[in-house]
Amino acid sequence: MRIVFQQELREVQDRLVEISTLVAEAVDRAVIAFNESDIHLAEEVIGGDDRIDELASDLTELAITILAKQQPVARDLRTVVSTLRISSSVERMGDLAAHIAQLARYRFPDRVVPGDLRETFARMGALDVAVARRVTELLRTQDLAIAEDIRATDDQVDALHKHVFDTVLSDDWHNEALDTVDVTLASRYHERFADHAVNIAKTVTYLATGDWETGEDAED
Amino acid sequence: MRIVFQQELREVQDRLVEISTLVAEAVDRAVIAFNESDIHLAEEVIGGDDRIDELASDLTELAITILAKQQPVARDLRTVVSTLRISSSVERMGDLAAHIAQLARYRFPDRVVPGDLRETFARMGALDVAVARRVTELLRTQDLAIAEDIRATDDQVDALHKHVFDTVLSDDWHNEALDTVDVTLASRYHERFADHAVNIAKTVTYLATGDWETGEDAED
Repeated sequence: MRIVFQQELREVQDRLVEISTLVAEAVDRAVIAFNESDIHLAEEVIGGDDRIDELASDLTELAITILAKQQPVARDLRTVVSTLRISSSVERMGDLAAHIAQLARYRFPDRVVPGDLRETFARMGALDVAVARRVTELLRTQDLAIAEDIRATDDQVDALHKHVFDTVLSDDWHNEALDTVDVTLASRYHERFADHAVNIAKTVTYLATGDWETGEDAED
Repeated sequence: MRIVFQQELREVQDRLVEISTLVAEAVDRAVIAFNESDIHLAEEVIGGDDRIDELASDLTELAITILAKQQPVARDLRTVVSTLRISSSVERMGDLAAHIAQLARYRFPDRVVPGDLRETFARMGALDVAVARRVTELLRTQDLAIAEDIRATDDQVDALHKHVFDTVLSDDWHNEALDTVDVTLASRYHERFADHAVNIAKTVTYLATGDWETGEDAED
């Protein structure tokens, strides 16, 4: 039974990596769609989100089945429970990638972001793509150095998010309200995307170090 | 052991009701702070969010302990696992109440919302308070009619959320970018608050009806 359990945990890990890979691809396409006003990529991301939701739902079912059949305790139990939490965060990252793509679709053929903020959003998007790929690597390798990387990348995203607001609230911002609304939402989506990556990094870290208490998802 | 398990499930339920009650109080104060620019209430909500996070974290620990000690299967197992999901949603509702309070604090002594949208936000805030109280009732009674109520209230919140954007994007909107940013964020926080209530309603419903598959948290 121990061997079966280890095989099942491996299956769980493989599926998390699979979903996370799809999310990394989704956000990669979403930020291109967003930054370059590519309607086809936007539609792909929006249409593909159901598949991510479905895989996350299936993974929840698998975790519950493992709990019922294997009755794990101690660290094994926490590993399975942490799967539920990570799956939920990855699924939300997929939703946020779809939200970014939706903004691109609404504004097509125009671009969402006015000229003076395009460079900032290009950087923020690239960081979100990087952080999603790091999440996949973290789930594959459980290498805690990657968890540290993810936190550092999130700090950069937060700084860019702040820069967006500083720009929008400066005297030089003369764009219409539609731009202000879309830029505000887009910045928030990019920032929350990286937050969820940090939550995953925390869960993996606390699982490895055993310091679970402080691992509750926190926004900031 | 069966009796002990039932007592433990009761304890879990009581704690969910306790946390949900705190969140309902938090959002009640947050929307007053937000709509009336009350800095003291805003500080109370922001300061109180740590307590909600702590209680949610303790409840996660209790659920894991129950899984380890009682090794529940079938419906009992799903009940405990659903606790983890509900606890996470309630905790996020507390975060969003704190975000609403933070907007009030940033803008104090000014009000966040300009005159033409105050009535809309007053209604949206009242609906969020109502939905939070309904969540508490739902968790206390497991009465699925309340779950339906929560979905209906969320539809009203969504309609007001849409009205906010229609107003901000209309030709009559001449407010500065700061107002546009804050109104956009505030509307999003109010809307997400009700979304999480719907996620809880879904989880409770699917737990009662056994149709778990479609119960994965979805944004819309």
